[in-house]
Amino acid sequence: MASPLAHPVHLRTAPARADQATVRRLNLSLLIGTLAGGGPRSRARLAEDTGLTKATVSSLVAELTELGLVTEGDAGEPHRGLGRPGRVLHLNADALRCVGVEVNIDFLAAVVLDLAGRVLARRRIGLSVVELGPARTMGRVAELVRELVDGLGADPTQVHSVVVSLPGLVEVSAGMLAFAPNLSWRDVDIAHTLSGRLGWPDVRVAVDNDANLGAIAEYAAGGEAGSPHLVYLAGEAGVGAGIIEAGQILRGASGFAGEVGHIPVGPAAAQCGCGRRGCWETGVGLAALLAAFPIDDEVRDPTVDLTARLEEVARRADRGDPRAETALADQGRWLGIGCALLANVLDPEVIVLGGHYPPLRRHLEGSMRAEMTARTLAGSCRVEFSRLGFDAASLGAAHAGIRALLDDPTQARPGAA
Amino acid sequence: MASPLAHPVHLRTAPARADQATVRRLNLSLLIGTLAGGGPRSRARLAEDTGLTKATVSSLVAELTELGLVTEGDAGEPHRGLGRPGRVLHLNADALRCVGVEVNIDFLAAVVLDLAGRVLARRRIGLSVVELGPARTMGRVAELVRELVDGLGADPTQVHSVVVSLPGLVEVSAGMLAFAPNLSWRDVDIAHTLSGRLGWPDVRVAVDNDANLGAIAEYAAGGEAGSPHLVYLAGEAGVGAGIIEAGQILRGASGFAGEVGHIPVGPAAAQCGCGRRGCWETGVGLAALLAAFPIDDEVRDPTVDLTARLEEVARRADRGDPRAETALADQGRWLGIGCALLANVLDPEVIVLGGHYPPLRRHLEGSMRAEMTARTLAGSCRVEFSRLGFDAASLGAAHAGIRALLDDPTQARPGAA
Repeated sequence: MASPLAHPVHLRTAPARADQATVRRLNLSLLIGTLAGGGPRSRARLAEDTGLTKATVSSLVAELTELGLVTEGDAGEPHRGLGRPGRVLHLNADALRCVGVEVNIDFLAAVVLDLAGRVLARRRIGLSVVELGPARTMGRVAELVRELVDGLGADPTQVHSVVVSLPGLVEVSAGMLAFAPNLSWRDVDIAHTLSGRLGWPDVRVAVDNDANLGAIAEYAAGGEAGSPHLVYLAGEAGVGAGIIEAGQILRGASGFAGEVGHIPVGPAAAQCGCGRRGCWETGVGLAALLAAFPIDDEVRDPTVDLTARLEEVARRADRGDPRAETALADQGRWLGIGCALLANVLDPEVIVLGGHYPPLRRHLEGSMRAEMTARTLAGSCRVEFSRLGFDAASLGAAHAGIRALLDDPTQARPGAA
Repeated sequence: MASPLAHPVHLRTAPARADQATVRRLNLSLLIGTLAGGGPRSRARLAEDTGLTKATVSSLVAELTELGLVTEGDAGEPHRGLGRPGRVLHLNADALRCVGVEVNIDFLAAVVLDLAGRVLARRRIGLSVVELGPARTMGRVAELVRELVDGLGADPTQVHSVVVSLPGLVEVSAGMLAFAPNLSWRDVDIAHTLSGRLGWPDVRVAVDNDANLGAIAEYAAGGEAGSPHLVYLAGEAGVGAGIIEAGQILRGASGFAGEVGHIPVGPAAAQCGCGRRGCWETGVGLAALLAAFPIDDEVRDPTVDLTARLEEVARRADRGDPRAETALADQGRWLGIGCALLANVLDPEVIVLGGHYPPLRRHLEGSMRAEMTARTLAGSCRVEFSRLGFDAASLGAAHAGIRALLDDPTQARPGAA
């Protein structure tokens, strides 16, 4: 009997060569990914779970052990038979540390993770990045990274990567920031500047956009972890989307995909900072929300902690303050309109709202969900609120380093950077 | 010196196992893809071009020859030295045929390709699919496929695949049409119905959405062939997008990505058939364009060939007919607004406009490009007009079969379906 093509058609630009080195790298990645994602297990179990032969598993485990990424220990439960107790393999989470840094308008945030994604250190410092400018800011970033790593008693050779999040258009493969409107930075070579400042020869330094890294944080450690079709909406200064499609960041041809802040689905008459009218940001941005309150209102005071201000706005709406109620219902409505659009174009499993949205959840949700339901054509996209708070980008940056290492465990070899 | 991560971070849901069978399949695909895309060459040259050893190439070529997909012949130019003339390997384009069928509101179109993508036969028949209903329509599809294959003197065992294009929401892996609003079809098992009608046990039958298949046609055989970040906009009855991102069709979580017809970036007051107002389709759809003319105008007569009607509209605008000029300038403007939105969200290299747009090009282009330029934030997305005419979907359907075979050449083994 004829049967449908088992899989959707896959297109390829250039077929990839599966030579022995590539195959070995893929299988090293498969084994360490299995230990990282599924927990400790014996060689025999690893062979069973991956379909590789026991001989191949033994050879690959020897290499991973030599790289320091895998260690061997007794099984948790006592061995019931005679002979040696069962030996299990673990991911050596302490082998290397991955650092994530977020550079934003008025703060730097940094986090250090072990290879299991546990937070070893975290720091946030307030400063005016715009006033400081790129050169001195990157100096402060290097200081911050150095302090955190020193504070852990770690050596630079124990650091795998430092990944920096930036609020703007990033050229990932060049390690460059192309343009960050809210910082007024243009064409800054972030990766090489920071490499030069740190002077840590084996440490990989990379850079990405805050929305992409927020998406990676959600994918790696958020409430929707592992969802292969996920959009993360970073609301705060600007509004940007990080799109994960089929388990990969959707970057587009120039690496600038996800620039949703200025798509024309906001209030038609609203003037946007970009010079156009009707941009989505004028409906769903933080500035748009706060502009509903008088200019001398404490919720607009930038010296007050943002979470505290957002909670105050939510409390006013709880009490029935009509200004707060209307502003939040409006923002929820614009959120729903734009999220439905993203659902129709991208058909994700879930859109996760980060940045300033989570503290306002109970007042955004009603009008947002009403628009989503009315406007989503097909699929079953959910909208959820992030639980990662304002640390999503730095957390995602550190996780991006872990992912790169798990994808290619030979990166753990000193001098492989 | 520290260096940036060489590649953008890749995330994966589950690591893929590279066992021997997988590796062999990938390398078979690599070799045949090299011959198909780059032309005939010797074993030695294949080894050089792919990086595989000569022994591996010889063994893989033996398998491809046994599958009938590769043949050996003399080199085109005479051998200059002594000894045997150089032998080169060719893709055996005649080994199998791939059939593509488009089912649309008032016609069926079918095309038969050889494995090099050459058109061996093509047929288009007008009929009212809505009146006929799914069962009888699929009967007509089977007849049409059978006639075309018979007409080539081909045997069903020489057919690799029949892929069917449908104007609606398609569940590719199930071979099902979920919903086609313009046909009023719901939950139709296209693949198994057609398989049953054909009764060709080794032929793969599959189904996909017309916009996705149009994108595949452009990627395989259009003016922008090979562009790995490509969006195809299928304008005609409805408006839908087929999105190719990093060389793969972007399907989303439910397979319903690219549903752009009802995103809210059309004229705010316009009532859409879906019940909402302001849908993009009301600005850029064919119906919206033709509605600018009186109801008894010949350009609205569905019994007249569509291309002839579109050319008449363009001619009127050439002559300065204000009704035609305004309608086309408006449609161009809405096209530019929506294409800029897609550029900001997806950052493709190119958006290709198919369906009813190409015959109207010279009158759409000005206002369309003005909006694109004003509204695209970053990247350098171009908008081009398709040269594939109204055959894009059936052509893409046939190419989808070729791609599936080149991805897994072992599909050529009888009984492998």
